[in-house]
Amino acid sequence: MMLVPRYLGLVWRDIVTLSCLHRFLLEFLGTALFLSVSLSAVLMLPAAGRPRSDLRSADIPTNLSHLPADLHQSGLVLVSLACPLQVVLAFGLSIAMAVLCVGGEVHLNPAITMAMALSLRLRLWRAALYVVGQFLGGVASAGLLLGLMGDVTPVLNQVSSGVQLYQAVAVETLVTLQLVLVVMATIDVPLPAVVSPLVVGLAVSLGHLVAVSVTGCGMNLARSFGPAAVTLNFSNHWVYWAGSGLGACLAAVFNDVLLRPRWRRPGDWW
Amino acid sequence: MMLVPRYLGLVWRDIVTLSCLHRFLLEFLGTALFLSVSLSAVLMLPAAGRPRSDLRSADIPTNLSHLPADLHQSGLVLVSLACPLQVVLAFGLSIAMAVLCVGGEVHLNPAITMAMALSLRLRLWRAALYVVGQFLGGVASAGLLLGLMGDVTPVLNQVSSGVQLYQAVAVETLVTLQLVLVVMATIDVPLPAVVSPLVVGLAVSLGHLVAVSVTGCGMNLARSFGPAAVTLNFSNHWVYWAGSGLGACLAAVFNDVLLRPRWRRPGDWW
Amino acid sequence: MMLVPRYLGLVWRDIVTLSCLHRFLLEFLGTALFLSVSLSAVLMLPAAGRPRSDLRSADIPTNLSHLPADLHQSGLVLVSLACPLQVVLAFGLSIAMAVLCVGGEVHLNPAITMAMALSLRLRLWRAALYVVGQFLGGVASAGLLLGLMGDVTPVLNQVSSGVQLYQAVAVETLVTLQLVLVVMATIDVPLPAVVSPLVVGLAVSLGHLVAVSVTGCGMNLARSFGPAAVTLNFSNHWVYWAGSGLGACLAAVFNDVLLRPRWRRPGDWW
Amino acid sequence: MMLVPRYLGLVWRDIVTLSCLHRFLLEFLGTALFLSVSLSAVLMLPAAGRPRSDLRSADIPTNLSHLPADLHQSGLVLVSLACPLQVVLAFGLSIAMAVLCVGGEVHLNPAITMAMALSLRLRLWRAALYVVGQFLGGVASAGLLLGLMGDVTPVLNQVSSGVQLYQAVAVETLVTLQLVLVVMATIDVPLPAVVSPLVVGLAVSLGHLVAVSVTGCGMNLARSFGPAAVTLNFSNHWVYWAGSGLGACLAAVFNDVLLRPRWRRPGDWW
Repeated sequence: MMLVPRYLGLVWRDIVTLSCLHRFLLEFLGTALFLSVSLSAVLMLPAAGRPRSDLRSADIPTNLSHLPADLHQSGLVLVSLACPLQVVLAFGLSIAMAVLCVGGEVHLNPAITMAMALSLRLRLWRAALYVVGQFLGGVASAGLLLGLMGDVTPVLNQVSSGVQLYQAVAVETLVTLQLVLVVMATIDVPLPAVVSPLVVGLAVSLGHLVAVSVTGCGMNLARSFGPAAVTLNFSNHWVYWAGSGLGACLAAVFNDVLLRPRWRRPGDWW
Repeated sequence: MMLVPRYLGLVWRDIVTLSCLHRFLLEFLGTALFLSVSLSAVLMLPAAGRPRSDLRSADIPTNLSHLPADLHQSGLVLVSLACPLQVVLAFGLSIAMAVLCVGGEVHLNPAITMAMALSLRLRLWRAALYVVGQFLGGVASAGLLLGLMGDVTPVLNQVSSGVQLYQAVAVETLVTLQLVLVVMATIDVPLPAVVSPLVVGLAVSLGHLVAVSVTGCGMNLARSFGPAAVTLNFSNHWVYWAGSGLGACLAAVFNDVLLRPRWRRPGDWW
Repeated sequence: MMLVPRYLGLVWRDIVTLSCLHRFLLEFLGTALFLSVSLSAVLMLPAAGRPRSDLRSADIPTNLSHLPADLHQSGLVLVSLACPLQVVLAFGLSIAMAVLCVGGEVHLNPAITMAMALSLRLRLWRAALYVVGQFLGGVASAGLLLGLMGDVTPVLNQVSSGVQLYQAVAVETLVTLQLVLVVMATIDVPLPAVVSPLVVGLAVSLGHLVAVSVTGCGMNLARSFGPAAVTLNFSNHWVYWAGSGLGACLAAVFNDVLLRPRWRRPGDWW
Repeated sequence: MMLVPRYLGLVWRDIVTLSCLHRFLLEFLGTALFLSVSLSAVLMLPAAGRPRSDLRSADIPTNLSHLPADLHQSGLVLVSLACPLQVVLAFGLSIAMAVLCVGGEVHLNPAITMAMALSLRLRLWRAALYVVGQFLGGVASAGLLLGLMGDVTPVLNQVSSGVQLYQAVAVETLVTLQLVLVVMATIDVPLPAVVSPLVVGLAVSLGHLVAVSVTGCGMNLARSFGPAAVTLNFSNHWVYWAGSGLGACLAAVFNDVLLRPRWRRPGDWW
């Protein structure tokens, strides 16, 4: 009878420490920084077709007379206006730089926090606090971009037309599984500072290489939720929650049971 | 007379240890993870021309009126729908991340396992076991993609039309030689964890830069065999076996005889 | 009354030391090297449309008959003449290589020097001296390119048409904030040599991914000022000063107050 | 009178040691490996327009009906057949992997060997021996490709039409200067194995970003000389010798006099 309030009191005292609140602040600031940079990179892609971002004169051959004659005659030619790798690099680099800026221990991704809590590496109430910080950071950066640019629809995570929803969930699960496995591997191995954020950035880039043309690559609920909350567009939004959650659970099981088994002694689990 | 069964008994007892079976599991899981991610990245390339993967609206300038007028008048213009570097990066990153996830000692490539066995760094029966795990991983991931996407023909390794078969074998040999040499170099030098998988990933990317337009870049028999077995399409499949085998043999000889000679004392070879 | 000249004398004696003058020389040489390489990479982009840089025959399909027939019939086709990632990589790599060449402690960017001075990590007169060296380096490299190529207009930092000035300032602030935060993080953590320049290069690349299509990506006043001074084209030039300054101030505050607080004891600030 | 033969005898005895001959072999093998991989990557670029390298079906949208309707109507569209970054990455990665394979101390570039000899870090006759090995490696790999592919004209280093020769020499000087400075910086600083080859690879990539559209990017006389010797096409070949030589001299002076001065005591020079 007295146990519940006492338990809640202990939780509360664990949360209102300076280190825990600072970590909450870091999750918020890191997610906001990461998403402000990466989403504005996507918004400002020359190929996004918005009249605001006219192409710079230096980026386009305004004088095409120097092309070989046979190209001209055949009526073919072209300039690459958009490279799909820009999105891939923008997300990978921005997460790496954000983790580096705010310190190497932050998660900046609810799926990672969830896998940590599931594998008993993190207390549940701390995990909840971090996730709240991440979602607040996502909404804050999406709101900032909405105020600055007037429109954040191009950065919404949406299932591409023609893609079945079960395919979208499978792809999201695969890329989240891969990302969380990499994060857990970098945690279990002692690494020099800086290396871990860069490796996580590469895993994020890989996820975008796979999923960006199918689902826009959620892989991070804070990234999916921010623009959706700001534009109130939640169509098929459950896909990102399902894929992220499944991927995080699978990764926790794979890592702790199959890849680096911890079943030798029951005590190893705590 | 009694020697053969005794020998087989010793082999058997070496195999059914926990560490050896765990390594078999790691080779299987690592190859399956690596190929699921990289092959799905290739399958989902916007330019693969399948109706399923309609281009996302954010990736294409649906409103082209902001282009310079002279471009419009000349009838030229364009958008890069596919960058060949996406395939290059997807394979390099996915092998790096998979090696990182399952632990830095796995091979995930029959050519590497074969070179290790040839250079007497690995017992023959263990090598056979690892190769079986790799092939199973390749078939499993190809089967998974077949079930999910309904078609894995675009990821088949095929010799491009116009390429002579001896050219294809030569290119496969060159890229495999290069990859196995890099792996042997990273084994012989003490390296911080994480670095070795990333370097191997760069070597895989380099191989794809060279060979992807000629043979689709096999370089890994598990990658070549998986989609071929699932679609039962084995046309010119011997090219990948010949190139991989030749490359692995050449690499073992180059590394141990020319680059880092081990001939000083006969005992160094064991 | 006697204090000012005595103070100036102390400053003067701190400046005319060999180490301080050598550092001034390094800032000058490093900025000149970095900008010579990166700006000439931008000037020589095939797509810049200048008659001088005819495309190399090997880079273009002069014989297009090997394309699939349906592509020909549909009148579509294409060659990527310019990849926006070239600019991104050229700036990131050239700053990384320049910092590596001249030694890991140089700034090569007035925004970084300013943030160091603001956070009391660097004496004010030294900061001023470094900034002078950086601006001289920027002007020297722009002058060199002007003499060699005859025109440096394509490398001018200009706000793209259609972009509001407050948007340009916001974007410049964001990318400078991100860059300076990364630099401060690499200074506060002990890192192996070589790693820090590469990480800063990645942050510069990320900034260009975000801002290159909006403002040409200043992020470095020496880079913005050099070409502007040589061509005497200062239209909207204040945008780069405002963005750089704001970003540096915000980064110093964020880093020292929020991310890695130094408020525990007043003495920590000196 | 007796001094010259005695001196030559000493030189001879220094050369015919196992370590010196092994290093000669490494320079030969490393250069041959590096150029076989990088030049074949350039030869096999899809956009090189040779009938041999038909585009793979998976790389091109043979069915374009899934493109947005307005793109079709406007008659515009496109696929990126060639990304200029492929050449940039192929050279950077192949030099990094080759240095890694044959061991971190090799030069694989006459300009680097020359700068080492000039700065008295390497004995003159050893430098000559290494350079001979590098040239032999370049010719061997060009001959191999000629035999395999039947034509190596596309990989010839040639000054692009419209580029003045003094501009070509200046660009070659700049990129060689930059490369040799980076190599000297990585030699002077103690680095973990593997890092130095990767950094040199990045410097090579940066050089190609700058120079590939102007001179094809020589930067390495073994790379320029190999294809030229095999095809007997030496037009404007002096440009690469002049640029490489100038760059190496400048780099040696810059590094030892300005960046990391060694003038404190005369004895530091030996």
